[in-house]
Amino acid sequence: MKSVAIGIDIGGTNTKYGIVDPQGNLLASSSISTSRDKTVEEYVQSVHDAIQVLIQELDEELEIQGVGIGAPNANYYTGTIEYAPNLAWKGVVPIADLFGKFFDVPIVITNDANAAAVGEMIYGGATGMKNFCVITLGTGVGSGFVVNGDLVYGHDGFAGEFGHVTAIPKGRLCTCGRLGCVETYASARGVVLTVQELLAGSTEPSALRKILPEDLTPKDVFDAAESGDQIAIDTFNQTGKILGRSLADLVAFLSPQTIFIFGGVARAGDWILEPTKRYMEDHLLAIYKDKVNIVPSKLPESDAAILGASSLVWQEIQRNTPKIMQNN
Amino acid sequence: MKSVAIGIDIGGTNTKYGIVDPQGNLLASSSISTSRDKTVEEYVQSVHDAIQVLIQELDEELEIQGVGIGAPNANYYTGTIEYAPNLAWKGVVPIADLFGKFFDVPIVITNDANAAAVGEMIYGGATGMKNFCVITLGTGVGSGFVVNGDLVYGHDGFAGEFGHVTAIPKGRLCTCGRLGCVETYASARGVVLTVQELLAGSTEPSALRKILPEDLTPKDVFDAAESGDQIAIDTFNQTGKILGRSLADLVAFLSPQTIFIFGGVARAGDWILEPTKRYMEDHLLAIYKDKVNIVPSKLPESDAAILGASSLVWQEIQRNTPKIMQNN
Repeated sequence: MKSVAIGIDIGGTNTKYGIVDPQGNLLASSSISTSRDKTVEEYVQSVHDAIQVLIQELDEELEIQGVGIGAPNANYYTGTIEYAPNLAWKGVVPIADLFGKFFDVPIVITNDANAAAVGEMIYGGATGMKNFCVITLGTGVGSGFVVNGDLVYGHDGFAGEFGHVTAIPKGRLCTCGRLGCVETYASARGVVLTVQELLAGSTEPSALRKILPEDLTPKDVFDAAESGDQIAIDTFNQTGKILGRSLADLVAFLSPQTIFIFGGVARAGDWILEPTKRYMEDHLLAIYKDKVNIVPSKLPESDAAILGASSLVWQEIQRNTPKIMQNN
Repeated sequence: MKSVAIGIDIGGTNTKYGIVDPQGNLLASSSISTSRDKTVEEYVQSVHDAIQVLIQELDEELEIQGVGIGAPNANYYTGTIEYAPNLAWKGVVPIADLFGKFFDVPIVITNDANAAAVGEMIYGGATGMKNFCVITLGTGVGSGFVVNGDLVYGHDGFAGEFGHVTAIPKGRLCTCGRLGCVETYASARGVVLTVQELLAGSTEPSALRKILPEDLTPKDVFDAAESGDQIAIDTFNQTGKILGRSLADLVAFLSPQTIFIFGGVARAGDWILEPTKRYMEDHLLAIYKDKVNIVPSKLPESDAAILGASSLVWQEIQRNTPKIMQNN
């Protein structure tokens, strides 16, 4: 009998799911469309059936320890998804209870950035760390904070929205309706906006002028930077400046040992990491200087969402084991 | 035999100490000058001797459970005070070890704002709360964060410097050498600076024009506001605007149930609380709106420093009791 956890990552478009062992090996995985069914009840049935197929195909004796779910606006405390703008289901959805009808094991849910943080702690670069942060720089900017070895959920389950901390008062309009959020500068869309601003404000030749703004991605900016394109290099520098200053504030709140960076924008590697680190150090209070690492996530990106979701199960088992037993 | 904790609050000028029972009753207290001795070793001896006098005067059978110490730049993990600018002792001072030579019980240290947070949890308005913050608005701005029932120390013992989060990029010069820190707006000095700016920018008659800037205190501004002085009212409004916006960021990090406000500026009551709360709500991400309370600390201000320091002892005893036993 092999102990495994099921990991399910519910995204706006696709739902990825997989079977993961305690060492973080993904034994099997697949995905289905999140919007394929009319109701959330039918959707959960579909996901369950698909996972059963996966289990049968594996042809091993498995002992499922729990189901971990990463989803937008997921509340760890209540097991519900609440008013998620990018999902078809409206209002408050009791997703843990719905999955509980099919799986007679603990169901743990949280948002995808929190799941990424637990994944980093259980399988990734944060094993053994008690205080660290994961920042996801993708379509949006998300964050998961670990303090004293536990995820920070806050009193309502929704703590850890670094993407919606104000980076620049009265700055860019955010999709949340507020102004100047970190997300408006450090997300994929933020990087593209910065490219457009820099292109508009200079006559510098740039390969980025030849791409339609709506087609432009951080990958294009990375490729241009690698070719020595000054607009691209300046874009990462400016992104790093704003992100770095906001991370200096994060350090004043939480003083993490390491900040792990993850997602599409982070794929630019040192182009984004170096200025971020430099500007963060510039803005740090003296007692924090030269103490905090900023490094790429150690989770394999293609499987990170499923791994993160599955890691919630092992974390929950650890949390519920009395400390006195853990020491033995 | 009565169980008690010793609380010691080391300030730049005076050291306050007292004997406190588990319910937060201050059985006896006194203070001595922090700078009366030439060396820190002699100082610790003096504090010990003074506490012995206090114990003898009490004339009760006491069982001392521990010594809690609140001090600037105190590191919970190492038991040291590190490079405290307002204390005469230079470098890293092993204060817990020094007190340990005189007291054969656990010695717990942390900074004063963290001690205030634990005091609030053990004796004050946060009993039973697992996620809350204490913000001290005094000569400086300090903070103590409680997450999942434990104080946030960060990886190095120095987390929780809300006073040095950037409120306004390139704003006022802070004593830390950086620009625009929350402390430069929401401390006693920050409030006085705002009065001066408002006086300089208007011809509005104000009682505050009759006080020398170097003599002006938040108490004067409060008295003027109570008399309907518009400059004073605008000062608190502007302070609340900046503080409230920074607290909205704090909520995005930690999502606390309640934010307790404490210290000289907080004594202005609703004059500062109302605009702070209003501007915080204005700037909150939708999911956090109408959830977070901002209230004055419930600790009696005159004894709060000693109570906070002593509470570290009871907190440490709780932390070291396995959870499985706490449930019985």
